[in-house]
Order: sequence, then C-alpha cells, then structure tokens
Amino acid sequence: MTKPTTQPAKVTIGLVQMTCTKAKQPNVDKAVARIGEAAAAGAQIVCLQELFAGHYPCQEEDFTLFDDAEPIPGPTTERIAAAAKQHQVVVVGSFFERRAPGLYHNTALVFDADGTTLGMYRKMHIPDDPHYYEKFYFTPGDLGFGAVNTRYGRLGVLVCWDQWYPEAARITALHGAQIIFYPTAIGWQAHEKAQFGASQHSAWETSMRAHAIANGLFIVAINRIGTEDHIEFWGGSFVADPTGTLLAKGSHEHEETMLVECDLDQIDFVRTHWPFLRDRRIDAYGDITKRWIGDA
Amino acid sequence: MTKPTTQPAKVTIGLVQMTCTKAKQPNVDKAVARIGEAAAAGAQIVCLQELFAGHYPCQEEDFTLFDDAEPIPGPTTERIAAAAKQHQVVVVGSFFERRAPGLYHNTALVFDADGTTLGMYRKMHIPDDPHYYEKFYFTPGDLGFGAVNTRYGRLGVLVCWDQWYPEAARITALHGAQIIFYPTAIGWQAHEKAQFGASQHSAWETSMRAHAIANGLFIVAINRIGTEDHIEFWGGSFVADPTGTLLAKGSHEHEETMLVECDLDQIDFVRTHWPFLRDRRIDAYGDITKRWIGDA
Repeated sequence: MTKPTTQPAKVTIGLVQMTCTKAKQPNVDKAVARIGEAAAAGAQIVCLQELFAGHYPCQEEDFTLFDDAEPIPGPTTERIAAAAKQHQVVVVGSFFERRAPGLYHNTALVFDADGTTLGMYRKMHIPDDPHYYEKFYFTPGDLGFGAVNTRYGRLGVLVCWDQWYPEAARITALHGAQIIFYPTAIGWQAHEKAQFGASQHSAWETSMRAHAIANGLFIVAINRIGTEDHIEFWGGSFVADPTGTLLAKGSHEHEETMLVECDLDQIDFVRTHWPFLRDRRIDAYGDITKRWIGDA
Repeated sequence: MTKPTTQPAKVTIGLVQMTCTKAKQPNVDKAVARIGEAAAAGAQIVCLQELFAGHYPCQEEDFTLFDDAEPIPGPTTERIAAAAKQHQVVVVGSFFERRAPGLYHNTALVFDADGTTLGMYRKMHIPDDPHYYEKFYFTPGDLGFGAVNTRYGRLGVLVCWDQWYPEAARITALHGAQIIFYPTAIGWQAHEKAQFGASQHSAWETSMRAHAIANGLFIVAINRIGTEDHIEFWGGSFVADPTGTLLAKGSHEHEETMLVECDLDQIDFVRTHWPFLRDRRIDAYGDITKRWIGDA
C-alpha cells in the first residue's frame, strides 16, 4: 500500500450514535440515511456503532440469532458500501459475519469513499460477561491488527472489548494508523448502575483517552444508545485528540450524528513534543507475550 | 520468592510530596523525618519522589552534577534503609546511582520493613526534552521489569517517563505486582503552561489511571512540588484504585504527606468482574517488539 499523496491535513469525522430495532432492515435503512446526512453536512469519514444492524445480539445464548449473520460481502455490507460510494465518504462499519457454518466473527470493514472494501478487521478480544455472551457467538479474530490508507487518512479499526487492551492500540499505531475507530456496544445494567456505573463509564473513556496519549493519534469511539433487554447502552461517543483531550462527546440518552474535525498534522506535532515512540524499549517488551509471570 | 502468608488485605500508603534544596543533606534529613512521621501516622509503605535527594539534576547538562551520584549501597540508600528498619515500614526510594565511572542510572530501590533491600529497578525509559536532559546523565536500565514481595504487599516500581509506556505497566503487572509506584519529577515550564499545561497534567494522570484499569491494580504516583530553575513541579501525587478511581490527590503547590488506605482484595474483585487479563491475545502481540511497521 502506498500513502495517498493528496491526503488532506484536516478531516471531518461523522459519528453515528443511534438506537436499534430487533429487525434488521430499519437499522440498515437508518444507518444509510445517517451516512448521507453526515456526508451532506461535511463528514468525510463516517463510523457506525458495533453491530448496528440489530439489537446487540449477545444478551442471551440464542442459536436462532446466528440467522442474523451474513457472509462478507453480503446484503448489509453491500448496502453500506453503496452508501459510501454514493456519498463519497469513507465508512467504518461493524457486521455479524458468517464465515462458514459454525464459524462467526464480529467483523469491521473500512469502505473507501469510492465504495471499495479496503480492510477487514475481525475483533480479536472477545468478552464474556453476564449479558455480553460474545464467546458463544464469535470466534476470536485471526487477522491480527493493522491499518489501511483511505482517501481521508490512514485508519485502524478495533472493536469494543479491544478498548481495554493497550497492546491492540499500540500495534495498530505501529501500523501507521492516524485514527483508531472503536465501534462499540457497552452500557449499564440496572442492578449495578448505582454502585459501579460512574466508574465503569469513566474507566471506559479513560482507557481510550490513554491510547490516544500513549500513541499520539486520534481515537474515535462510537457507542449505541437506548435500552435493550438488560443493558442501557450509555452512548457517550467521543473523539480524543493525540493529547487525550476530548474534542466532542455525545449524550448518554439521545441519538445524534456528531461531526468532528481532526487536524491530522497534530499527530506530528504531539509525537515530536511528547516523543514517547522514540524511547520505547523494544528490547525489553518480549514478556508481553506471556500469560503470567508471577513470582518467577 | 514465596508469597508472604501473613500479608494483610489492607495497607496504608504514605506518599511524601516535598520541595527539595540543591544541597543533599537537608533533603535526606527531610525524607527521613517524613518517613518517621508517616509511619507514626499509620503508613506501612512510604514512597519518596524521584531523585528526592536534590534538585532535579537534569535541567542542564552539567558534568559537576555527577558528583551527587552515589554507589548503591551508599550513604543515602543506607539512611533510607535505616529509616525503614527503625520505623518498620516498607520504603520506595529513588536514587542517582553511580554504577561505575561514566555509568550512571536513575535507580529505585524497595526496602522491606526490616531495612533489607528487596529490589532494584533501573529506569528503563529515559526522556530527553528541553530541561529534562536525562539521556546525558542516565544509561537506560538493564534489569527489565519486575516486582518484589514485601511485608505489606507485592510491589513494582517504575519511574517517571515510564509512566507513558503501557508495556512497562503491563509487564510489571504480569510479575504479580499489586501496586505500582511511580516516583516522579514532572512539571510545567512557564512559556508553555498557559497553552499546554492543563492537557499535560491531564494526560499524565490519565495515562497512569489507565494502567490501573488495564491491569487491575493500584497505581501510586509521587511527584515533587516547588519551582526549580525552569520547571514548576506540579505535585498532584495520587493513588488510583484498580478501577482507575482516584482515592486521593495531592495539591499542585504544597508539601504534604498523604496517607491512603488500599484494600488489596479489591484487585481480585475487579479483575474477576473486569476480566481483561483473561482475554489477552498473547498469540498476536509479538509485533509490540517492533519499532515501526508502517505501510508494510
């Protein structure tokens, strides 16, 4: 891959934070409409939330929900690719991928502004917590981490639970990503919101702001809103700049399409003034591939 | 090393945030006094700030300052070890180490509550920025990352610039550290404080809170205060719990010895409920030992 020489320094990101229905078609229609609206308002890269085409499917272990998965390419990815092409915007989408019978992934695609599929990322870290039973549905990704050149910048994509892993952000950054997108589906559960809700949300935001800081790049998190069964999705979609400063933050309750301008030249400035990449002790990081060292 | 069976669940940390003089003796006397005061008030582990025995030495490249370094063990480490023994507290101290002619390190030691030296950590990531000319003074550490069992918990130590590296915190956590201490000397410079001061401080705190979150452990940062030459050290020493929540935070202007109780059982609870360690993709992290991958 070669770097696009026409890449602009400033890009406008559109974050689509929305509620979802159980039925697929209304969500896909809504996402396509939002892509068009965001593009009309000036967005050059639009990101959709995790598994935007339905309710978050992992709240129960339900075999019938595998029927909602699609091959890639499939009808839903084709709709989104067409929207990218029609509106000449880069789109980051998140899909329930049926790869083979009995083999499913939580997969993100980057469509360039001409509708071509540039990159596929299969979620590497798969959670399993009460009502986030993702290990039942998704095989952990086998494509590793990466980044792709689009018309509007070099982008990496990670998905939700990956947010908690500095290794994922670091390796994506080393691939040259200028912006890391995190399509997300996370929220509060009623029985623990009062006691743990604030720290859960703060930790989530802090963790990704720290990825922006450690790696000197932009972080874009797009989270769903609305209550589905046990989970009140907390929205709060945001963009953090390479100093970890929030450029914009969505509400916890409302649908919104946020437009946020990012000056990609800030990456060079921040990385030079906060030269963390310069001093990494790559000779001493080998143990990061160990599960546990303990008392050894 | 075996795990101490008598280790209590709750430990009280003493953070000594102080101003320093250029002359060594008053600082060492003050640190020893503060250790005693903290112990008398109930501290079981006391941590001193980075290079507490003098002014931060790296604001200019001055050959005469190497005369302030000492071998380890040396007079200053012996004073601190004696204080640990006298007051029966674990002490984390930070020293300008003369290892051999022309070979100096920025070195932290952990003294057990009986005064024995349990662990040595030589700062692995060495900064070099205007008025933080550490690469002139300190050879990067060659001991790697680790943790040691003390009377009051299994502790890891990292130093200042290490704060910006999630790899350092992760590997220290994998060694079983329950608390990571960061003796620190960081502050604002007058010509950039108005524009960048807030984001600098926020990034510093955010980065370490994120280490607490990602690794499910306690983070203790001890920073100096007072203005020395070009730098207004910003204090703000703090303790973050395994959810990244700040348990206490020092002022930006004043000397203080903070006492903070940490319930080490919280580590088990948080790591079980936020099971990030469970899902690490150690098969896919090998590239973290690369300097850059870029477009490859």
